[in-house]
Amino acid sequence: MSSSAEAPLRVALLGCGVVGASVARLLVENRDDLTARIGRPLDIVGIAIRRLGRDRSDVPVDPALFTTDADELVTRADIVIEVIGGIEPTRDLILRAMEHGASVVSANKALLAEDGPTLYAAAHEAGVDLYYEAAVAGAIPILRPIRESLAGDRITKVMGIVNGTTNFVLDKMDSTGAGFAETVEVAQSLGYAEADPTADVEGFDAAAKAAILASLAFHTRVSSSQVHREGIAEVTAADIAAAAEMGSVVKLLAICERVNSPAGEAVSVRVHPAMIPRTHPLGGVRDAFNAVFVESEAAGQLMFYGRGAGGDPTASAILGDLVAVARHRVEGGRGAGESAYADLPVLPMGAALTRYHISLDVADRPGVLAAVASAFAERGVSIETVRQQVVPRERDGRAESGANLVVVTHRAPEAALADTVDALGTIDTVREVVSVMRVEGD
Amino acid sequence: MSSSAEAPLRVALLGCGVVGASVARLLVENRDDLTARIGRPLDIVGIAIRRLGRDRSDVPVDPALFTTDADELVTRADIVIEVIGGIEPTRDLILRAMEHGASVVSANKALLAEDGPTLYAAAHEAGVDLYYEAAVAGAIPILRPIRESLAGDRITKVMGIVNGTTNFVLDKMDSTGAGFAETVEVAQSLGYAEADPTADVEGFDAAAKAAILASLAFHTRVSSSQVHREGIAEVTAADIAAAAEMGSVVKLLAICERVNSPAGEAVSVRVHPAMIPRTHPLGGVRDAFNAVFVESEAAGQLMFYGRGAGGDPTASAILGDLVAVARHRVEGGRGAGESAYADLPVLPMGAALTRYHISLDVADRPGVLAAVASAFAERGVSIETVRQQVVPRERDGRAESGANLVVVTHRAPEAALADTVDALGTIDTVREVVSVMRVEGD
Repeated sequence: MSSSAEAPLRVALLGCGVVGASVARLLVENRDDLTARIGRPLDIVGIAIRRLGRDRSDVPVDPALFTTDADELVTRADIVIEVIGGIEPTRDLILRAMEHGASVVSANKALLAEDGPTLYAAAHEAGVDLYYEAAVAGAIPILRPIRESLAGDRITKVMGIVNGTTNFVLDKMDSTGAGFAETVEVAQSLGYAEADPTADVEGFDAAAKAAILASLAFHTRVSSSQVHREGIAEVTAADIAAAAEMGSVVKLLAICERVNSPAGEAVSVRVHPAMIPRTHPLGGVRDAFNAVFVESEAAGQLMFYGRGAGGDPTASAILGDLVAVARHRVEGGRGAGESAYADLPVLPMGAALTRYHISLDVADRPGVLAAVASAFAERGVSIETVRQQVVPRERDGRAESGANLVVVTHRAPEAALADTVDALGTIDTVREVVSVMRVEGD
Repeated sequence: MSSSAEAPLRVALLGCGVVGASVARLLVENRDDLTARIGRPLDIVGIAIRRLGRDRSDVPVDPALFTTDADELVTRADIVIEVIGGIEPTRDLILRAMEHGASVVSANKALLAEDGPTLYAAAHEAGVDLYYEAAVAGAIPILRPIRESLAGDRITKVMGIVNGTTNFVLDKMDSTGAGFAETVEVAQSLGYAEADPTADVEGFDAAAKAAILASLAFHTRVSSSQVHREGIAEVTAADIAAAAEMGSVVKLLAICERVNSPAGEAVSVRVHPAMIPRTHPLGGVRDAFNAVFVESEAAGQLMFYGRGAGGDPTASAILGDLVAVARHRVEGGRGAGESAYADLPVLPMGAALTRYHISLDVADRPGVLAAVASAFAERGVSIETVRQQVVPRERDGRAESGANLVVVTHRAPEAALADTVDALGTIDTVREVVSVMRVEGD
């Protein structure tokens, strides 16, 4: 800690990419406001970067502050802001910073989701703060509301659009009717998707955020490896069209749910595309915006909406944490540590309760509906709605009558639903399973 | 404070109406979770009510805890929850509680908006906490995000639907086409409006919330008497129809804006009905829901949505504050005190920059548009769009040609706009000013 009550607090910045540069600039531009709000000025004592020599004129600080020696930098700071990302060497740097008495503000979803408990334990040991609002949904204040505002309530569900790239792609597929591959190319050309979009489109990014949200919402350790993950690469124009016919849109959702399983209370944490009604608060989230929908016993339904990425929005979240951590340095006190007392089991995906929307291309013959309905009934899956429509088409050059059969189920164990879909594929009169999509948002 | 580290924290509840009963019930039902999250149990040591003898069987506590002696009760608590409302005797009770070392959680928007600085000063003096998340927008976490999450950012605008009654009435007018008076009666019969709906429909409730939001967002003292206030009693079916033609809805908005006036930075704080596009995040807020839209320099646009009233939703916000305050008792530290360092001037309404939508019934004669346009130009008001449409009608039993002229202005000083409307009313060829409504949300 600083020695004098009036001395500036020493801030070290690890990383100076898009987010780091925004953080540095805002620290300089908002210096007077920050000083007034904290009660002491903040001084940037160093910015760790991988190599010197690049043009950093966009960052309005003394160039002498740039250093490649992050190991040394973290030993002489009151607060360390980490925007490097990744697991190593970041974890070591954070632990080292804490050992040297620094509080840490991080935007590192991957590390928090993989090994949050280690960081929390080190923070507890060192008596310092660990804050990471920017790790989930960028500028949107969501972790503090879950950790603090809803701390007297019981959260039952958190469901979020927490990845801007995939929301941009799905929204464009919805508005243009285009397929997945070409839409990703558009997103890449506009800067909404990276050259290698795997982390986003395969749901890895969203899964890390789901793990963090579930851990905080349910006071239970959930790591990213425990999150069932499906990306959007398999979402077809036919899926989007099927959703549109239902008055719905397809969104990649991070879903964290409190479940009363036969063995007692448990949590289900998963990331997958799902249909959601356009009238649902999440249904209207366009472009690359993020939003998180929260249900709790007393508060009811809440939604938090805003920008999930970008330099300045992410920096806003980081600076909010920075002010909290700095106030603790000035006024005393500490933020809440890890809260994992509930220690609820994380259900395997097969035991999650989901709803399916299934679109089938079937022969227009007697007995088809009976065969299909039996496949559901035999697996204990209850059907909510069914709609059959004759569709004229050709097969091998000859006109033949076929039909489109759309089934929406009630909530049922995921395993039973998946098994039902497999069984449908083996029915003679089912020519093709056109689209299978989970349904969320009643 | 409690003497032993393991002793329960003593909680006194002032008031046991709908919200108080929910707070008491949740304190009992969630006792184990609260203990785990705080690190010590909470004990209700008393519930102050106006008179004994009423049936309180809905409140699952020892009936001996009810007392009419609030003055005495507040002297023997670590934390006092105030849900009585009103100015006196509530203010005295809160000050007395603080003098006796209790932290205070309040839902009292009227008192906070009228005399927040006195409460903050007393809390500072006594070294205790003052929290009041439930005072604005019920269950929606909005004060904590503004005070803490956005503490490193610069908020430029807060615009909220913060009164459920008026939103219910305006939403129903929009969906049914009915007038104000009959819709209020419907709202009363459904329990969405009180027998005397003045505080809601005249905007007093929203104005108090606007004062609180502006104070926190701009680090400037704003009291409810400084808030320009217009209710919805004058909103007509014609206004709603005019908004619908623009693809907009009419909402009662609490608007807090940072303004660069000629004399420097200032704030404008006002409550009035305004047209807002249906596609704006606030445009889709239906029924009695609340939502607050926040714009800041780094974070960009954010929105917070949820239930603004009701026993359990309000209790959720109160319990979140309670956990924060209780953690401070256990772990040390204190929440942020008053932050009014920016001390920005509050602009009079005439200096606020607003946009108007004006619908006129005019004669279909040459020169009408010129006369109308001149009235705007002479007062320096720039017109954004104008639309004229001939409407066949009768006057004194004879067919005559008339037209509907709709003008939407750019942003201009409110005084110039109001003056322009007055001038329009004196133009011979303007038969009637059909609707005048401010426009928000670009």
